[in-house]
This record gives sequence, structure tokens and C-alpha cells, in this order.
Amino acid sequence: MTEPVSHLVLTLSCPDRPGIVHDVTKVIVEVEGNIVDSQQFDDPETKSFFMRVEIHTRRSVQEVREAFSPLAQQYAMRWSVNEVGQKVRTIIMVSKEGHCLSDLLYRRRNLNLPLEVVAVIGNHPDLAPLAQFYDAPFLCIPVTKDTKAKAEAELLALIDAENVELVVLARYMQILSDKVCERLHGQVINIHHSFLPSFKGARPYHQAHQRGVKLIGATAHFVTPDLDEGPIIAQEVIPVSHRDSTASMVQKGQDVERRVLAQAVTWYSQRRILLNGNRTVVFE
Amino acid sequence: MTEPVSHLVLTLSCPDRPGIVHDVTKVIVEVEGNIVDSQQFDDPETKSFFMRVEIHTRRSVQEVREAFSPLAQQYAMRWSVNEVGQKVRTIIMVSKEGHCLSDLLYRRRNLNLPLEVVAVIGNHPDLAPLAQFYDAPFLCIPVTKDTKAKAEAELLALIDAENVELVVLARYMQILSDKVCERLHGQVINIHHSFLPSFKGARPYHQAHQRGVKLIGATAHFVTPDLDEGPIIAQEVIPVSHRDSTASMVQKGQDVERRVLAQAVTWYSQRRILLNGNRTVVFE
Amino acid sequence: MTEPVSHLVLTLSCPDRPGIVHDVTKVIVEVEGNIVDSQQFDDPETKSFFMRVEIHTRRSVQEVREAFSPLAQQYAMRWSVNEVGQKVRTIIMVSKEGHCLSDLLYRRRNLNLPLEVVAVIGNHPDLAPLAQFYDAPFLCIPVTKDTKAKAEAELLALIDAENVELVVLARYMQILSDKVCERLHGQVINIHHSFLPSFKGARPYHQAHQRGVKLIGATAHFVTPDLDEGPIIAQEVIPVSHRDSTASMVQKGQDVERRVLAQAVTWYSQRRILLNGNRTVVFE
Amino acid sequence: MTEPVSHLVLTLSCPDRPGIVHDVTKVIVEVEGNIVDSQQFDDPETKSFFMRVEIHTRRSVQEVREAFSPLAQQYAMRWSVNEVGQKVRTIIMVSKEGHCLSDLLYRRRNLNLPLEVVAVIGNHPDLAPLAQFYDAPFLCIPVTKDTKAKAEAELLALIDAENVELVVLARYMQILSDKVCERLHGQVINIHHSFLPSFKGARPYHQAHQRGVKLIGATAHFVTPDLDEGPIIAQEVIPVSHRDSTASMVQKGQDVERRVLAQAVTWYSQRRILLNGNRTVVFE
Repeated sequence: MTEPVSHLVLTLSCPDRPGIVHDVTKVIVEVEGNIVDSQQFDDPETKSFFMRVEIHTRRSVQEVREAFSPLAQQYAMRWSVNEVGQKVRTIIMVSKEGHCLSDLLYRRRNLNLPLEVVAVIGNHPDLAPLAQFYDAPFLCIPVTKDTKAKAEAELLALIDAENVELVVLARYMQILSDKVCERLHGQVINIHHSFLPSFKGARPYHQAHQRGVKLIGATAHFVTPDLDEGPIIAQEVIPVSHRDSTASMVQKGQDVERRVLAQAVTWYSQRRILLNGNRTVVFE
Repeated sequence: MTEPVSHLVLTLSCPDRPGIVHDVTKVIVEVEGNIVDSQQFDDPETKSFFMRVEIHTRRSVQEVREAFSPLAQQYAMRWSVNEVGQKVRTIIMVSKEGHCLSDLLYRRRNLNLPLEVVAVIGNHPDLAPLAQFYDAPFLCIPVTKDTKAKAEAELLALIDAENVELVVLARYMQILSDKVCERLHGQVINIHHSFLPSFKGARPYHQAHQRGVKLIGATAHFVTPDLDEGPIIAQEVIPVSHRDSTASMVQKGQDVERRVLAQAVTWYSQRRILLNGNRTVVFE
Repeated sequence: MTEPVSHLVLTLSCPDRPGIVHDVTKVIVEVEGNIVDSQQFDDPETKSFFMRVEIHTRRSVQEVREAFSPLAQQYAMRWSVNEVGQKVRTIIMVSKEGHCLSDLLYRRRNLNLPLEVVAVIGNHPDLAPLAQFYDAPFLCIPVTKDTKAKAEAELLALIDAENVELVVLARYMQILSDKVCERLHGQVINIHHSFLPSFKGARPYHQAHQRGVKLIGATAHFVTPDLDEGPIIAQEVIPVSHRDSTASMVQKGQDVERRVLAQAVTWYSQRRILLNGNRTVVFE
Repeated sequence: MTEPVSHLVLTLSCPDRPGIVHDVTKVIVEVEGNIVDSQQFDDPETKSFFMRVEIHTRRSVQEVREAFSPLAQQYAMRWSVNEVGQKVRTIIMVSKEGHCLSDLLYRRRNLNLPLEVVAVIGNHPDLAPLAQFYDAPFLCIPVTKDTKAKAEAELLALIDAENVELVVLARYMQILSDKVCERLHGQVINIHHSFLPSFKGARPYHQAHQRGVKLIGATAHFVTPDLDEGPIIAQEVIPVSHRDSTASMVQKGQDVERRVLAQAVTWYSQRRILLNGNRTVVFE
């Protein structure tokens, strides 16, 4: 066997009906692809079908897309074909806290996280040096009530101009407008703290401390207009004890936040996350 | 050194002030005790002091209690002295689900969980055979709106008659009245499911499934009149995925429930849990 | 769509070559099957292909097996078709410690673990009452140097007579002969303690305690003639501290042992484990 | 009560005998200290006693040291008194891999890890920019068979000149000589990968992959002349699966390595680690 020219990943979702996999693999046979990893899932509730498949083939991404397109239309698929390891064109949005940004940029440089960071956008200038160290362009776009619309227009213009696919809110302390959320549906990943039970309102770590919780956690999710209620991608917790002050709980929380966000972004870059209404299918 | 006659555990909490540990250890020196393990904690918020100390001594529990009593009064302590490994006189209350009861009785018989199970009380008869297999007396006390007061009176009478210290609600699907909760403050441990975020109302696993959570958990806590809001003792989570149905989430939840409840009861039996207002100090 | 008559699970492994999935799904289309869950994996090292697929179909297991058989021959597959939830005919072998047996039988009765326990075989009589409580036939087959061959013959005879598929060594303290290991290749699951680093020889918990490890764990694996070196199925660890004695480490170890063994047996019963030389593919 | 001038942490270990805590707290009373957190442990095997206590007092570190010194002599204690949060004078040693260095420096700058990084020493120049970004002086000291003695002399001279207390081997791929290990006993923390079972010799991740392990881990330990066998401080694992290549296992391993090393260094800086022969007592 000659060395495969490309290692591709195909994802798709569509209304379920018999024969999908057979028809999909027919196309794969046609492009002389060899399946190296695949997962499928059929949600009995939404009657939707999900599939992620990695193939080796001598055809290019473009050729595979063309071969696959008719079938995608026939089944009304939401689908994508990409090269494995292809860098995802990304904007990372931040405010003042750098723990998540630092972790993402570190993983990009040292652990092969395939992100092409088009820009780090901060509504404060604080994290410019960190971005600079990691060779990521930094844009300061302050946001006030008056400038918010203009700031968001700038963001959308950059996304269009630079063909950005993913926006990561890495502890960005501004709320995106409903319009932006809808426009970028399934393309914006946010991280926020999570507790058992959950706490509404201000100072959640303070509330969690008052309540004496023994676990604190973080949730990475896609952003929707419904604040902090978008499809969940990843969750993790760490133990705390009576010895933890609110301050130390915040610090431990930052540690789990950066871990969970990095997990979600890594999965995204590997095309492992598929949307299923207000939920996700994650093919780990 | 001759072999120590007894291995005792002393716990205490009181308003904080300098010199407590010195005065406590003075009594320990007086009873010729040797400290083998100790933890202290001073809560800066509630200005309360907490201590758990294990000693080896040739004096009896009774002698140590007498020696310690004057100091306890002087500092207005909530305190206890017990033999390490002494069996805790316990009532376990159940309904129809046996996963928690089975685990507790298994640990009592095979893993040295020091419980003297005075009775397993079920509001249904279903778990009588399980209790019987593990040589635990089973009482069926059905509860209806009309019989609830009588059933609780029966419970309290048994607690008094048998000198019961701990009541474990091992998936007992009845709510204890405020009166009973207050009477047994700090003596009743309950287990319930927990999620990030949390879900109010009926069918919480169903809600969690609809929401697409990636973790489900359980919380063991002391029971207070404020339903499911008492001091938290232990929490744990396990991962779930898009492949989990509501039913499989319930099964995984049962697994974590029994683990967390066993953890809380084990800590209780080792005198590791001290109340700190609506929180706990757990000297692991 | 009428209600599916059966929910089947198909597993297969074979030398990798292009077109397998397409050909497999062709058979699924032929039996009017609908894929509800599937995973594939291609090991680039062993050049082997692995697949597990769940389908809904109105055909019977037998019909699907017949439809699939020619393809299986063509690709030289190791394969199986079973009903999801079909009980696995199982022998559980024990000695004196009941923590693993108790957990398996509990899960069978209360958590739908699909085992048909043909027999619990103990080389000591100690666990007969536990088996009896859970309505599992208990056989005491003592093993000495002189009787070992006879005892194993008895085991193999029972396996043949009762069409047993799975043997679980639930803390069975005897070593099966190479002959039995080979005869039952891929059908015997064992559990043993595991440490970082690992400790050879006698009293491993004692060694681990002396070494001051902070984690202890357990490994479930298929049994091969190479003692404790068979294909790993599942591993888990729990934290220990300087406060743990050798005895408490043993107790914590038992807890993780029973959890890991239950995990492995559950996966087996769901046909999630495929052999890959001396490794396993586990389609979680 | 006026605001406490200082928040101190006292640690001590000594041969066990009755009355230690009472005598220690007598000194604390004398310096008008208030205990805010304390843990003690008596190892029944080594017959050694360990204590860590945090106090609030208006006396200075120096005054408390003087007050405590006579008792320390009397009990033959190994002991220390420090301000809580006081920066530990530290040298971090690296080679080419930056994941651990990056994490430590990030935590120092952003998460209050109290390290005074006197120097980052690399035997290669690769990590100079990373150190520079985090304002840590970088020294390149190459090591060959011929220059090793000189390089170590330089290290020891720097430690003496700069009053360095802690040396962290953050993936430093050179072995310190026995002489240096002994001279810096209990002051050098190393991180290395760990597996269940463990693998000796070259390419351990490759071996682990071949063996099909389901967990990989890392161990932080004090360095002794006995390579990778010093007292264990912290251990952690993460799951891997059949989908992981050797390369992805290495990457996941790096993630757990940096976490475990950060944990160990954090505990050290908080004076939570006490040596107990070839083990540690960690007062979490």
C-alpha cells in the first residue's frame, strides 16, 4: 500500500433512516477511502443520526467533498469534511483573567492543539503581553453600553474577513448580543463555573462557600441567546473542603475552568462535537 | 510501654479563643494519653474552633469523659469521647430501592463499618429479605397522610428505647416532619442526587438528560427542616455521555449515591464530621 | 415504523482492508436493520479492524447470523451477533473474600446486569450463604495440589454441559492451569490490585504502604497463561494518604477492585470488549 | 482583638512521646498565638510524631523561632517556622520540554504560587524565552560527562550564594549525582511518569501502549540517590483508551505531569510536606 495522501475526518448529522451508513460508506469506497476510526449514534428521542468517521485516502479534501455532496443533499445532512490536524481559524476573546488564554496558547504551541489564532480580542488591554509572547495578534476592543454594537460589528467583520470558524470565550466577561449568538450558532464556546447545587446571581463562589459544597466544577458549552444554557460540551469537578476560603475556591475553580475549556476546544478541533438540538453528541 | 488499653477519639467544637489546644492537651497529659492523630480548624467567619483527636490511653472512656468535662463546660464545647471502632447504634430507613441499604449492610459485615443496626425501617416490606440476610431486624412501618404522626412517634420511641444515635435515610422516599428533623439535628444523614446545574421539581434525571449534562452526582447531607438543604457531608460525580438514556443515568446515579452515602456514614462512625452552622467540618 | 422486534448487537474484528463497513452495512440493509449505535476502530499497528454495531430489526438473531455468515467468512472475521440485554451464561469463581461476588450478584438482581449465573464455584464453602441469598447455585470444589486436575476437569465439564460463555474470577485465589487458560482464551476475567509503581512478590499492599504510595488501584483483565499479564480491560485508582495503614489500604483496595471488576463484566455483557492481540479494544 | 500582625506556619517532626502537643501549644500560648489550623500524625511504625500548625500572632517569625527553639532541642525536632505565603527561594531545572516550567511560572504569576524563582537553569537554551516572558532569570548550564562535576559545583554555589531552599526538576533530563542528592536531601522535587503496572527501561510510554494500559499517571517525589525511588509526594492518573497512540499518551502524560508537579510544589510552599523516612506525611 502506498502512503495515504490525506487523513480526513467526515462528520454528519441528519434525520435518521435505515441505510445511511451503507450509503455513506459507498461514497467512501468510491473515493478509495479506508476507515480508520468511526462512531455513529442514533438518538431515539430526536430521531436524528450522527456520524464521525476518519479515513485514509489519496483523494483531496475537495474531491471528497464533491463526491459526498449529492448524498448530503439527499439526506438533508449537516456535514463537514476536513483534514485531521487542520488548524481551526479561531478568535479567542478575553477580559482580564489569563488562566484560560494562557492554557490554550500553551497547548497550541507545545501540545499540537490545531488552532490558527487569527486574533485574541480583549475588552481590556491586560492580556496583550501574554498573547504577544505566544505570537498571537492582540486586538483591544473595549465595550461599553454605547460601543457594544460597534464592537460586535467589528468582531463580525473580522470573522468574515478572516474566515474565522471558532470563537472561544476564555473568561470574556461581556455578554454577546442575541444577534451575534444566533449568527454564530454552534461556533462560540464559553466556559463557566458550575456547582452542585447551582447558585444563581452574584458571587457564586461566595454562595458555594457559604453553602459548604464539597465539589466545585466548570462547564464548557456552546453559546446561545439563553445565557449559560447552551448545549453542554464538557464538565469536570474538583474537591474542596472546609479549609477552602472563597478565594482558594476561586483559584481551584480557575484550574478546572482552564482544563475543561481546553478539553472542549480540543474536541472541537478534532471535529468530535456534533449539535443535537440543545444537547451535544461528543464522539470521544 | 505497655499495650494501650483503649484507643479513643475526642471531638469538640466551641467559640474560638487562644489556648484551647493547650488546655485540651493538658487534660490528655493528665489521663496519660498519647496523641496518635489530630486535626484542628478555626473558621475565621463563624469564629468557631473544631478539633478531632485520637489518643492511646490506659484510662477508660468514662474516666476520660470525667476528666474532660470541666474544661468542656468552661469553653462551652459541643463534645464527645468515644472508643475508636465503637459501633454506632443506627436505624436505617428505606423504601423500595435497595442499592444503598445493600451497600451499607455489606460494608458492616465485610468491611468493618462499625454500625450496630438496631433496625431497618421500611415504609414498604420489599427490603425485608435483604435486611434478614444481613441479620438486621426489619420493621415495616407504612406511612400515609393519616398515619405519618403515629409512624414518627414510633420512630422516636424506638430511638429513645434503643439509645439510637444515627438515622440513615437510605433512599427513604418520605419526608420527615420539621419536628423530627429538629429533634434529631445532626443525627440524620440523607442521600440525594445532584447535578450541574441542579434541577428543581419532578423527574430530575429526566431533566438532566434533556439538558444533556455530562456529569451526574450525589450529595450526602444532614437532614434539616429545609428539604435537601442541610449541611453537606460528601459529594461525588460520575461522567455520563450522549449515549446514556434517562434509565442508564438513573442506574449510574444509584452507583454514585451508594458510594457517597457509604462515605458519609463511614466518616460519621469515625467521628470525622463536625457541624459548623449550616456547613460541616470533615476531618478526613 | 412498526415496533422493532429485536435490538441486536454485532461485533467483529478482522484484518483491515477498505470496504469492510460498506459490506457490513450492506448486510444490515438486507436484514432491514437500522443502526442505532456503532463504533469502529482500525489499529494501524496490528492492521486489524474492529467494529461494534447495535441495530433494530424485525429479523431474529438467527436470521441475522445467517445473513452475516458469508461475509464473515470472506473477511476472516472473529464475530458475534447477540440480543442486547441477553443474559451471559456465567460461572463466578471465588475463595473467601466476598466483596466482588456480592457486588456482581447485587448488580445482577438490582441493576439489570445481564448475567445468567450458572454457578458460583468456591474452593472454600464460606460464600455459599451469599450466593444462596442471591439465588445463585453454589458449588464447593476444593483445590489441592492433588485435586487440581480433577477440579479443573469438573469446571470444564460444567462449562460444556451448561454452555457457559464467561468465567469471572472474583478474588479466586487459585491459579488456573495453562491448559484451562488457553482453552478459555478471552472468556475468563480476573481482577487484581495495581499500584504505581507496581510491586512484585508477596504482600503487595504491605510493600505499597512501605513505599508510601498515594494511589492504589485495580486492574481487570482477561486471563492468559502469563499470570496477571493478560489483556487489560479496565483500571481505576483511589487516593490513599499517610494516615492509611496496610489494613485500611486493603479495604480501600477492595472497594476499587469490586468497582473495576463490575465495570469489566458489564462491558463484557454489553459486547463492548474486543480482543486485539494482547490488548483490548473497549467501545465504551 | 486587634488585627494579627503575622500568620505563621510551624512544622515539626520528632520521636513520638506523650505530651508533645501540650508542650508545643504552651509555647504558642506564650507567644500569644491563636491556632487557626493544625494537623498531627503519629506513625505507629516509625514511632515518629508529625505536626503542622498555623497560628495568628503579633510576634514576628524571629521571636517565635526563639521562643520555640529550646523545646525543639529538648524533643530533638526537625522543625521550621515561616510566614504563610512567604516566597520560597527556588531554582527550577529544565531541559527542552516546557510544559512543567510553563505551568509553574504561570501559577507563580497568576495564581499566587509563592515562589521566588532565583533562576531557571536549563542544560539546553530552548526554554530561555519562556523564562524571560515570566521574568525569571535563565541560566544555560550544559552538561556533558566531562562538565557534569563543574555544572553541579555551579549549581551548589548558586544555592549557597542565593540561599536557595527548593530545587524543582521540571522535566530535567539529567541525573543529579549522589553527592548532590544527599546534600539537598528533602529539597529537590522531581516529576516522572508512572504506570500500572510500571515499566522499566527505555521508552516507557511505548511499553505502556504495547501493554494496552487504560490509565497513565505521574508521580512527584523527593530526589534521593536511588533513582526515581525517593519519598512520594503526589500521584495522579488519567484515562487512556485503545484510540490513544504512543504520541497521544505522551501528550496526556505531560498534562498530568504538570498538574502533579504543581500540586507537589504548592504543598511544599505551604509547608504541608514532612519527611518520614522514605515516605512523606502530607497535611493537605
